[in-house]
Amino acid sequence: MKIYDWRLAPNPKRLRMFLVEKNIDIPIEEVAGDDLRLRPDYIARYPQAMVPMLELDDGTQIGESMAICRFLEELQPEPRLMGVDAKDRAIVEMWERRAFDEGMMAAGEVFRNTADAFVDRGVPGAAVAVVQIPELAERGRQRLDLFFDKFDRQLAKHRYVAGDRFSIADCTTFCSIEFASWSDIPIPERCTNLRRWHAEVSARPSATA
Amino acid sequence: MKIYDWRLAPNPKRLRMFLVEKNIDIPIEEVAGDDLRLRPDYIARYPQAMVPMLELDDGTQIGESMAICRFLEELQPEPRLMGVDAKDRAIVEMWERRAFDEGMMAAGEVFRNTADAFVDRGVPGAAVAVVQIPELAERGRQRLDLFFDKFDRQLAKHRYVAGDRFSIADCTTFCSIEFASWSDIPIPERCTNLRRWHAEVSARPSATA
Repeated sequence: MKIYDWRLAPNPKRLRMFLVEKNIDIPIEEVAGDDLRLRPDYIARYPQAMVPMLELDDGTQIGESMAICRFLEELQPEPRLMGVDAKDRAIVEMWERRAFDEGMMAAGEVFRNTADAFVDRGVPGAAVAVVQIPELAERGRQRLDLFFDKFDRQLAKHRYVAGDRFSIADCTTFCSIEFASWSDIPIPERCTNLRRWHAEVSARPSATA
Repeated sequence: MKIYDWRLAPNPKRLRMFLVEKNIDIPIEEVAGDDLRLRPDYIARYPQAMVPMLELDDGTQIGESMAICRFLEELQPEPRLMGVDAKDRAIVEMWERRAFDEGMMAAGEVFRNTADAFVDRGVPGAAVAVVQIPELAERGRQRLDLFFDKFDRQLAKHRYVAGDRFSIADCTTFCSIEFASWSDIPIPERCTNLRRWHAEVSARPSATA
């Protein structure tokens, strides 16, 4: 098995955190060039043109971070980061998707629609130029504000995002917050529960994965 | 158990197709009013303010269509719509996420940023007014075009979206295409494989779920 990755990208960090938390060691190849674009040989190998991607020894290519995590969770169940029983797995998936849709995507709306390096790349993986939309960056900021408050409320009731155990939902939430910080958007002062959680997760070895 | 749903919404149809395919019978309550908005009593019960939501007998609320499907797949495994082994489950999840991110979300970008009824609701579930962005509707059209081509290529090689078996990835793809049709965006004539697949899935009882 081999993982193709772009170390600077915020989304694949979810997978790297997962690997550290589970103590899984798989060779990782960087596939972005100095021009902050995926290398042509990688796009030729994997026309989906996204990272991360896990290639199995039989040549099967598995893309999408959560699909890769789920596969590895089955190969090596412990420690369980995707839930311990049917109900818990559903709750972890629910919060992971909320973190992605409402946090990661919103942070992406801000970053991809403002950063100079992405001037014609408003959408990841698109094979054609996609223009930036300044209004979408503004809407992303608005959505991030809602995301911070929602997760703050959840973390007022629970130690971790999906309950009492650290899970993949914490990885996605953490990476979303890191991604927002690229656009100088910090966790608001008012979100004291989210800030408590963030300090705790920041101290884990996986935080710098 | 009980499912809270909004029959007109495109996203929850994924779950209803899943229920028909698996022959699972769970009471469903409609929670939208004649004003095309979620009823206040539902939002009070479930501040996440999205559909569908599965409420368990112990009061646990599971949101996000795929989290609900995964829970039900564990309760009643056959017929398996989320993969039959670790690798297959990863491939189904990969294609389901692609269908959602690249099809459903793109169709939503077009619809929510053009339809009169959503003039201040550019994002589902947001507790505040979110303006429409006409440029985002245009970008959604562009992304749908890429989505159609990508899934056409996949369906040139496989009978179904995630391989040789019908899966939840087919449900999401089908609902995305239906959602795009609301904005008068059909499957392009050139996508002959996608059209072949669409005709086949349209003939299943679950297509009108």
